[in-house]
Amino acid sequence: MTPDPRLSINQATIKYAALADALGVVAAAGVEAIGLWREPVAEVGLDAAVRMLADSGLRVSSLCRGGFFTAPEGAQRRAALDENRRAIEETAALAAAGAPGSAAVLVLVAGGLPDGSRDLVGARRRVADAIAELEPDARAAGVTLAIEALHPMYAADRAVVSTLGQALDLAEPFPSESVGVVVDTFHLWWDPDLSAQIARAGRGGRIASYQVCDWVTPLPADVLLARGMMGDGHIDFAPISAAVAEAGYTSDVEVEIFNEAIWAADPAAVVARTAQAFDRAVGLRSAGRA
Amino acid sequence: MTPDPRLSINQATIKYAALADALGVVAAAGVEAIGLWREPVAEVGLDAAVRMLADSGLRVSSLCRGGFFTAPEGAQRRAALDENRRAIEETAALAAAGAPGSAAVLVLVAGGLPDGSRDLVGARRRVADAIAELEPDARAAGVTLAIEALHPMYAADRAVVSTLGQALDLAEPFPSESVGVVVDTFHLWWDPDLSAQIARAGRGGRIASYQVCDWVTPLPADVLLARGMMGDGHIDFAPISAAVAEAGYTSDVEVEIFNEAIWAADPAAVVARTAQAFDRAVGLRSAGRA
Repeated sequence: MTPDPRLSINQATIKYAALADALGVVAAAGVEAIGLWREPVAEVGLDAAVRMLADSGLRVSSLCRGGFFTAPEGAQRRAALDENRRAIEETAALAAAGAPGSAAVLVLVAGGLPDGSRDLVGARRRVADAIAELEPDARAAGVTLAIEALHPMYAADRAVVSTLGQALDLAEPFPSESVGVVVDTFHLWWDPDLSAQIARAGRGGRIASYQVCDWVTPLPADVLLARGMMGDGHIDFAPISAAVAEAGYTSDVEVEIFNEAIWAADPAAVVARTAQAFDRAVGLRSAGRA
Repeated sequence: MTPDPRLSINQATIKYAALADALGVVAAAGVEAIGLWREPVAEVGLDAAVRMLADSGLRVSSLCRGGFFTAPEGAQRRAALDENRRAIEETAALAAAGAPGSAAVLVLVAGGLPDGSRDLVGARRRVADAIAELEPDARAAGVTLAIEALHPMYAADRAVVSTLGQALDLAEPFPSESVGVVVDTFHLWWDPDLSAQIARAGRGGRIASYQVCDWVTPLPADVLLARGMMGDGHIDFAPISAAVAEAGYTSDVEVEIFNEAIWAADPAAVVARTAQAFDRAVGLRSAGRA
């Protein structure tokens, strides 16, 4: 069976494959799109990555990731913002090199509380300030900054943006072309307000990325690696996919799984298994198709 | 220093102490109130527990816990509802036996998804149905059912009620005397909407219990035991305590910590340490006092 034409393999799902191998196994599986990460791109250098992506014939669906800008004013904050400006340029270059339909989308993970700080309100305000500062750069580069709400269990140490509603509050002061949001099932599935917030995102044209993976229990010792293959956990994807489709999102859908067992498996086997699970569990063919 | 007169030690914080020992160490420390659990009460029998509580001179601030009623209609659901009716009676009996100012508050933990089910919406609907069924029993017994939103990381396997706003949606169809909510810092601290929802709870007279403990990172392997002593983690208690005070809550404040290291320590030492941490970190003397 041909993989869903909207399936995109986020490179983190096959984390131990270098960029060339990742592009190769994704293309060989008949998958049309890939979500890239900055670190493996940097390993070969941006120019080489651009050529490799162009040669692969794949679309790029996003670049992970910018953000991590909760530090108070000072050298650390300036360095983080400069790093984000470089990430914006990389996003534009890669999207231009990908196959038609590629998305110039930079995923932003806010960052947690600064070391020793308990000022959650202040950290969240500094996220808003950082986005305001970066938005002109994104707009100039034709890049959409995609604010990703992470699961509340990461609020202290990874991302102070915890709900889709909060991400939309951060995005809405800016044009939807330059600031949008990520809808990620792992992070958001529990939210009683999810369908209302997806509809709100749709009304504003704010959905820049739809990412899927499952919530499995018990959580592993390292909760950063808690994600599971679709169908292995507790998430009912079909209503979320239907809401995202009704909200007007028609672009690629990324599978992004941080999971030691999946990382340890052969990347080509993981891609094949992902394509099957995507068809079976995500409900895209029924929800998202004309 | 005398412990804060509003401090209540939830029995789970000194989990391995039998009821007699728990009452003894709490009273000996000069703490005025205790939050009880059904299991240690059942160990001695309700009648004996009532006498022991009366003899201790302590107030009871809540009984943990009812709930776990997400199962579909059938024998399992009927058994759960009957169990909750017994818990309501126990709550009334214990509150009547405690010192003046005791609260007839039964904490409800909703329960997770039924085995093999991914129907989160249905599970949440059955929670609402269960509360509707139990509310007349609670009202007749003079008991307040206190709906506790648990952290979203427990949504699959422990509690499908995940935010204070959702708990209030469940409570508001009923009189505030019979159905209220728990404000628990561990479960709710991350919520961008928390202060607004505490104010909403205050307007409706819905805060039946305020519980505190800290969020520590990294999370331990068993996330059920992730709670920390106030001051050891990332939560800024003062603004939450201030919001709860502004919402009109003037009753006891429970410290409820599930933590292997704290459980392994001497209960009297834990109570002393808790009283100190409560004074230092929770901000009650500044926030809640006339």
